Amino acid sequence: MTAAPWTLHPDRALPGDPGTRSLAREIYTATRELPVVAMHGHVPVEWFAEDRPFADPADLLVVPDHYLVRMLASQGAGIQDLGVRPLGPGAGVAAEADPREVWRRFCAGWPLFRGTPTRFWLETELVEVFGVTERPSAATADALYDQVQAVIDDPAFRPRALLDRFRIEVISTTDPAWSDLDGHTRLAADGLGRRVLPTFRPDALLAVDAPGWSDGLDLLAEVTGTDVGDYAGYLSALRTQRGRFRAAGARATDHGLRGTGTTPLPDEDAARIYAAARRGEVTAAQAEAFAGHMLFQMAAMSAEDGLVMQIHPGVLRDHDLGIAAAFGPDRGYDIPVATEYTRALQPLLSAFGRDPRFRTILFTVDETTFSRELAPLAGVYPAVRLGAPWWFLDAPDAMRRFREAVTETAGFANTSGFVDDTRAFVSIPARHDLARRIDAGYLARLVAEHRLDLDEALETAVDLAYRLPLRAYEEPA
Amino acid sequence: MTAAPWTLHPDRALPGDPGTRSLAREIYTATRELPVVAMHGHVPVEWFAEDRPFADPADLLVVPDHYLVRMLASQGAGIQDLGVRPLGPGAGVAAEADPREVWRRFCAGWPLFRGTPTRFWLETELVEVFGVTERPSAATADALYDQVQAVIDDPAFRPRALLDRFRIEVISTTDPAWSDLDGHTRLAADGLGRRVLPTFRPDALLAVDAPGWSDGLDLLAEVTGTDVGDYAGYLSALRTQRGRFRAAGARATDHGLRGTGTTPLPDEDAARIYAAARRGEVTAAQAEAFAGHMLFQMAAMSAEDGLVMQIHPGVLRDHDLGIAAAFGPDRGYDIPVATEYTRALQPLLSAFGRDPRFRTILFTVDETTFSRELAPLAGVYPAVRLGAPWWFLDAPDAMRRFREAVTETAGFANTSGFVDDTRAFVSIPARHDLARRIDAGYLARLVAEHRLDLDEALETAVDLAYRLPLRAYEEPA
Amino acid sequence: MTAAPWTLHPDRALPGDPGTRSLAREIYTATRELPVVAMHGHVPVEWFAEDRPFADPADLLVVPDHYLVRMLASQGAGIQDLGVRPLGPGAGVAAEADPREVWRRFCAGWPLFRGTPTRFWLETELVEVFGVTERPSAATADALYDQVQAVIDDPAFRPRALLDRFRIEVISTTDPAWSDLDGHTRLAADGLGRRVLPTFRPDALLAVDAPGWSDGLDLLAEVTGTDVGDYAGYLSALRTQRGRFRAAGARATDHGLRGTGTTPLPDEDAARIYAAARRGEVTAAQAEAFAGHMLFQMAAMSAEDGLVMQIHPGVLRDHDLGIAAAFGPDRGYDIPVATEYTRALQPLLSAFGRDPRFRTILFTVDETTFSRELAPLAGVYPAVRLGAPWWFLDAPDAMRRFREAVTETAGFANTSGFVDDTRAFVSIPARHDLARRIDAGYLARLVAEHRLDLDEALETAVDLAYRLPLRAYEEPA
Repeated sequence: MTAAPWTLHPDRALPGDPGTRSLAREIYTATRELPVVAMHGHVPVEWFAEDRPFADPADLLVVPDHYLVRMLASQGAGIQDLGVRPLGPGAGVAAEADPREVWRRFCAGWPLFRGTPTRFWLETELVEVFGVTERPSAATADALYDQVQAVIDDPAFRPRALLDRFRIEVISTTDPAWSDLDGHTRLAADGLGRRVLPTFRPDALLAVDAPGWSDGLDLLAEVTGTDVGDYAGYLSALRTQRGRFRAAGARATDHGLRGTGTTPLPDEDAARIYAAARRGEVTAAQAEAFAGHMLFQMAAMSAEDGLVMQIHPGVLRDHDLGIAAAFGPDRGYDIPVATEYTRALQPLLSAFGRDPRFRTILFTVDETTFSRELAPLAGVYPAVRLGAPWWFLDAPDAMRRFREAVTETAGFANTSGFVDDTRAFVSIPARHDLARRIDAGYLARLVAEHRLDLDEALETAVDLAYRLPLRAYEEPA
Repeated sequence: MTAAPWTLHPDRALPGDPGTRSLAREIYTATRELPVVAMHGHVPVEWFAEDRPFADPADLLVVPDHYLVRMLASQGAGIQDLGVRPLGPGAGVAAEADPREVWRRFCAGWPLFRGTPTRFWLETELVEVFGVTERPSAATADALYDQVQAVIDDPAFRPRALLDRFRIEVISTTDPAWSDLDGHTRLAADGLGRRVLPTFRPDALLAVDAPGWSDGLDLLAEVTGTDVGDYAGYLSALRTQRGRFRAAGARATDHGLRGTGTTPLPDEDAARIYAAARRGEVTAAQAEAFAGHMLFQMAAMSAEDGLVMQIHPGVLRDHDLGIAAAFGPDRGYDIPVATEYTRALQPLLSAFGRDPRFRTILFTVDETTFSRELAPLAGVYPAVRLGAPWWFLDAPDAMRRFREAVTETAGFANTSGFVDDTRAFVSIPARHDLARRIDAGYLARLVAEHRLDLDEALETAVDLAYRLPLRAYEEPA
Repeated sequence: MTAAPWTLHPDRALPGDPGTRSLAREIYTATRELPVVAMHGHVPVEWFAEDRPFADPADLLVVPDHYLVRMLASQGAGIQDLGVRPLGPGAGVAAEADPREVWRRFCAGWPLFRGTPTRFWLETELVEVFGVTERPSAATADALYDQVQAVIDDPAFRPRALLDRFRIEVISTTDPAWSDLDGHTRLAADGLGRRVLPTFRPDALLAVDAPGWSDGLDLLAEVTGTDVGDYAGYLSALRTQRGRFRAAGARATDHGLRGTGTTPLPDEDAARIYAAARRGEVTAAQAEAFAGHMLFQMAAMSAEDGLVMQIHPGVLRDHDLGIAAAFGPDRGYDIPVATEYTRALQPLLSAFGRDPRFRTILFTVDETTFSRELAPLAGVYPAVRLGAPWWFLDAPDAMRRFREAVTETAGFANTSGFVDDTRAFVSIPARHDLARRIDAGYLARLVAEHRLDLDEALETAVDLAYRLPLRAYEEPA
């Protein structure tokens, strides 16, 4: 180990070749201090609404970060020992983990993160936000814990204060479609209504054969005061909630379907499937057809109300059935599958792809679709923007591959700019910073290869970091 | 914007690292002045046969270039405003666009092409061919229009004269299988019969459930004087036309099928499906089986007559149904899909893959198949050559990825060399030049990493630029 | 051609950029002299058991190396002329090729290997092992043949002596599940029982609709003295042989299935399918279900006996039916197909993925799965290690892409380290050397980009070259 204090090299994540690096540094400098536009993420709205202090280093940095938990689990740690809470005593695992023990496990596992983006994000946070000067390790864990805890305890470390410190101009949360948006109402009352925005996520209401579907419907009915007993009521309630979200500042919807199609059904067929689903008699084929139909309906409503439609298919959720049974869903065990966009989106894009009132942003966790399907689609349909590489792909080399794979067909203007897609709030500045560095490196290479002039690269870098994400989520013309 | 005049850097598209660049420059210099061998393209034969002047800058550079049109459309331009003509007044769009207006839209959209190959090709053309010294923009559009128009109006700018100026040794057109080849006959009469070659494209005759199939058959019957009422007559007429193409100098056939198989049917089954199709009673499954059967038959005929069989599956054509209805097919709305070669080609390659009379060139728009399927196939079957990266993949980074993905398994000798695949005639020298630069950069990296000696790289560069495309399309032994 | 003697540049296959190269050289130096751990390969056990001299240059270097044979075949050589022996006189090809003629064909074809890993491996072997100072060519073929033959004839060139010379600490062979392991018994008697290990490969016994299935069962019954007439006996015999392999030092099983699933069947269903298969009445669907079931059973047995389970699906074997008919299987005509892991492995990993007694190593020849499926799986399941890029992917650029695609999600510790997967014994040191160079180059780039510190890179390099392959194949906790 090095004896020198742990510092951050100013050129980290920029290209190694000196000539290209020099260009990259100049380009990066043009974006470094720009505000953060965070239009897709998973920070709980309550953190901002309630503005309470964070509890401890484990609770802040380890437990809510899937990337950390899954890497430590992959080398044998039980996720309950990393602070993930089981569903109940029946799950047969201890209910609570000592935060200092969780932190020690993380610090001892620090070498596991070599070569991962977590390494970059965490070292940025630890050094820049928490003033740490030693690498995490078993030996330094306790001292680091105390040091981080002291920063957390500072009243200036409350969520709302961090919005300023992190230069976050706007941030979106993700909210279930049946949300009463109370948190956002409270933020609006406190003057933060245009800075923290809700996002309408109706997945659970569109999967009519999923176990929780009925419960979701009940919540939807309650929050809207609408009878969802039939298909018309269901559509009406969805429309009501979209309007409520829009009034609360929402700029987008979010659709995480497994995405097998967007073919609309005749209304009477949709109504019949809906009725069957209400009776609990729907078949898998009917549920799939209905999901495709509803994605088309969501696009139609977006063309009406101007909410930007985010689509990200292609993940098999809760892969480890034992983890799902003991800890519930969304524990970092979602695994990508090969995804098809060209045929699946043809009905939706033929109907709305040139509609000036409509915009959709397509995300993927299957990078083979970047050059094959997504760039060709984004490069011809005016309604389509290509979302940032995210989830497993928001990493230095993956983000570079994204630009290399899509730019030659879709250019820059058809991409949406970076989204951080995270619930690890303190990592947000580091995530945007890393994306800016990688984009600077890519642009610098184009300049070094005389495929772009420097003035163009500088302007494009600001587009990618700031202007494009604002533009992608603003109301279509 | 830079105030200095717009010039082309001699090292553009070469690697940025100084040591590798220096090697790349030396390698590129060995190929720079070589003749252009353009064995696959879409320039209309009439341009050469009639040798008329081009009309205007929009008609020459914008309207026929899908890459330009689709990028401008992706940011909201209507394609009718870019000079694409609708099918008729019923389509509900204006029939004609003013060419100067089209040109202005293109110039104003110039920043959209940053990072795309269009940027490289167009700047090469504008600077080298048209002497332009300012970047296209709204402000410079009119001056550029006039300057380009003046060059176009020069009698030295006729298509045949450009063949010399562009150092085009040989160029292939693409012609429907029912063509009477009148254009090529006229070229032969004028001594250009070995310089401009037809290519036999029978797709429309092999898709027995496509709307235009019967019309195509009628044309085939007429041009051959053959009764195509039954399967035997159909095969005979195809054979007749292949012979006519061959006599007119054709070196290849071109098969753009969606490519789901190459399994031959028993003759009686094929005849029965053909008869059903003639009655308009064919099923989709029958049509698919027949298409696979006919691809096998085309290979068998190639083994007989020596025409090289080009295969390029994997595109969903006319994705935007509204565009197809208003403007017809082939408007730049074709989107790739995931493609399978290994199983699909097994029957064809088991039958002809080692036949010394047969050669096939495999293209793709799904780059995941480069290392997984195409390089392993080309690296073992003597009849297989791996076609150049094209369509969405004829771009700097994509061409580099192609070499990186296939060379380690298939080497260089099993690749076909660059094809430009374009109808944008004036872009042909720039397209070949870009490919030579990228190949030089790739070879230079191998030399810099001591994986190849410089003398080998120099010889290989000439192979890729000149010898291999000639060899790939010459008659098999 | 260069007149200077043929030598190996010390920096070959390291990055070209001088700064990164300097780092790479330092990192590579830390691994260069480490022992070779070769836990997956295809060198016949007889070579070590009998320790006989090799016959001639063709027999040693050309005939057993698929990469050489397939490249020469791809440019028109008949494989019988490359020394591959046909199945019998009925095959209609000459039975024997003169080794000097085979060698001449290889030397004349030397330029074909430009840009391939074969080029690197062979030049390393020829220069370092055989002292060759001229490039292979038609002109030098005979002299090289004599020079290589002289080295082969040296008694110090026996297989066991080469184990020392090549610094091979441990090497695994691949053995059919019905093997009596006589070769390994003999090696154990000679004190090499912990240095040359068997690997249990049961593929042929699990494919109940394959032609040779019954013959394999007979051999299994004979070697175990077990009645395999019913499913219980079959399972019992497999268990017996696993125990015998384990006792003989085996650390792993190897599963090359086409891999369509791992869903266990109820015992009675499995028994019924087994019985049907014994009667020769099994359907393709039953055989597929049974294969998935048995992969699950193999995992269950691995959890019991600690043998590490290697899985490598995704290849269509014996693609050229004519070659298979004349020369038999495994002639270099296996072609990859797109492969799915996420859904296929869910049953197996939900059952054993967190079982501390179980470990599986996943290989692929479909590199699209690296970032999409394999890294996410290896990055969360403690039982999963991600195998090295191999077969068509054990090449400089492909190995680099592997690290770039998987490290950001799975880190280094979830990968297995390099395996050479070869029957070309003399190439083993060169193969491991190339992998170490590529990993050094990748790590050097991370250091140059300040994404990793040099001390971490040095430690990681030793992990990848030596510690991880040992650890991946040791008995699970």
